[in-house]
Amino acid sequence: MTVAARPSTGTPTVLVLDAEPLPRLGRLTGRARIEHTDESALAERLPHADVLLVWDFASHAVRSAWPGEGPRPGWVHTASAGVDHLLCPELAASDTVVTNARGIFDQPIAEYVAALVLAMAKDLPRTLELQRERTWRHRESRKVAGTRACVVGSGPIGRAIARTLKALDITTALVGRTPRTGVHGPDDLDRLLSRADWVIAAAPLTERTHGMFDARRFGVMQPSARFVNVGRGQLVVEEALADALDKRWIAGAALDVFTDEPLAADSPLWGVPGLIVSPHMSGDTVGWRDELGNQFLELYERWAAGRPLVNVVDKKRGYVPGH
Amino acid sequence: MTVAARPSTGTPTVLVLDAEPLPRLGRLTGRARIEHTDESALAERLPHADVLLVWDFASHAVRSAWPGEGPRPGWVHTASAGVDHLLCPELAASDTVVTNARGIFDQPIAEYVAALVLAMAKDLPRTLELQRERTWRHRESRKVAGTRACVVGSGPIGRAIARTLKALDITTALVGRTPRTGVHGPDDLDRLLSRADWVIAAAPLTERTHGMFDARRFGVMQPSARFVNVGRGQLVVEEALADALDKRWIAGAALDVFTDEPLAADSPLWGVPGLIVSPHMSGDTVGWRDELGNQFLELYERWAAGRPLVNVVDKKRGYVPGH
Repeated sequence: MTVAARPSTGTPTVLVLDAEPLPRLGRLTGRARIEHTDESALAERLPHADVLLVWDFASHAVRSAWPGEGPRPGWVHTASAGVDHLLCPELAASDTVVTNARGIFDQPIAEYVAALVLAMAKDLPRTLELQRERTWRHRESRKVAGTRACVVGSGPIGRAIARTLKALDITTALVGRTPRTGVHGPDDLDRLLSRADWVIAAAPLTERTHGMFDARRFGVMQPSARFVNVGRGQLVVEEALADALDKRWIAGAALDVFTDEPLAADSPLWGVPGLIVSPHMSGDTVGWRDELGNQFLELYERWAAGRPLVNVVDKKRGYVPGH
Repeated sequence: MTVAARPSTGTPTVLVLDAEPLPRLGRLTGRARIEHTDESALAERLPHADVLLVWDFASHAVRSAWPGEGPRPGWVHTASAGVDHLLCPELAASDTVVTNARGIFDQPIAEYVAALVLAMAKDLPRTLELQRERTWRHRESRKVAGTRACVVGSGPIGRAIARTLKALDITTALVGRTPRTGVHGPDDLDRLLSRADWVIAAAPLTERTHGMFDARRFGVMQPSARFVNVGRGQLVVEEALADALDKRWIAGAALDVFTDEPLAADSPLWGVPGLIVSPHMSGDTVGWRDELGNQFLELYERWAAGRPLVNVVDKKRGYVPGH
């Protein structure tokens, strides 16, 4: 259905906003003019590009650099699942098609969540501390089979997380924007949170989800509950989470994403007891850059042939709508 | 089939070798004389007992205290899966029936192994170190789906581990003493080790398995392989493992069991790079003592009624033979 605009004649220009090289683009030699840019030159280059590839998915530069009027790329692809870092009102209102890296990160992130859930259940961080102190201290740990999880976010990543937790015999409920078979709607959220042993945030960052994990929601959770965020930092009110851990409203948490990344060395979050901090790495398994590169090339073939693109973002909702 | 000897008249004496109290034994009030002993009085008390309950499963005192001749318990139950700590030649040769805690630890240990495998794949120990240093350092991690595991030990614990790893889409081979459907025999071991990403030791400690993970076997493994021992410490030649890690023959390891437990504060194992040390806790999830107590009470009902016991150890082989 969704065919993105392309030039009727000549060699198309693909502008790459990059921080690290993307070797696979050599495959387009002779078929596209590949130009690289950093954030500072982006605004100047955008009007001359047919395609924008946001390879530096940590950059928010597109939001401010996007041209309000006049020439602009007909297609923007981001090498990320989230699109919050580029969807400014002007881009949302334009006829430019936005695609994302849907699919690449599902299994890695699901495994990462399982790793965190099991590590917390088995008290692994404490074991590693005691090892450093050369102290043998037996403790009882938790069985995860038979516990309950609530996964917030019903896209491919949330669904992969739910599948993986279910494979560990964890009773898992999925919450999305729209209730449907196998997915609870927002009205069920607080009830599910109040019964969950594990709360997993894997939603896209939108106006509706911004700050949704706040003091009230941490207050609804069980004292034994543990919270994991692998979505976007701004889903969580970070001070409220630190406070909930400090007051023992919940038993533990793990954040892989933060409002400001990289997390500053003087952030109090590094030292919150019961909080595991990791550097936005949940989806990034060996070979991921090649997979992202190949995915862009496949989309490019569709675009160049005038065929409909896949992984097309609903720019009003802020994610790729799906099953 | 296996009915253990019991007194024809009078109240039976149940001798409990314990370190911690077992509250559930109150259920036998009026039906059995419960006597408690520590290691030092065990030899003196054993001839007067009808049943020995080895509640302190860390003790090896039964091996030396077991009476060679004369009166002795007709039934010994140990609150552990392994029986190596009590099977001396005199007990093995006697008509005393030995039962174990088969079943209680399967699921907890399987989850513990999954926790270690995922933590190693996702580089979680390094993440926790970097958190302590307040350092944001993105790394690539590994997908576990599609990797290969070799689980050595085909009893209920090994089979539960295999089920759990398969649920994470890890291709898993099981190795046991006797080849059968779904279980490889010892002849396949080296070939499987040479292809495994994960090698899991979950075998009983017997003459055949003692020291089986030695320098030669670590040499067979892939440089990317990681080794986990949740069986018994003596399955592994510990110096050979430390050496294999030091020389990068393998990429990492986790030991939950050791030749000498508790591990001494001055053991070099605490500080071996790439080695996770935990204090023999893989099977011990909240409620485990109650489950062990209930299991003994169920066996006691069978014994008191003159019915066959279950979980009966083959004293020649050193474990409960099964499917």
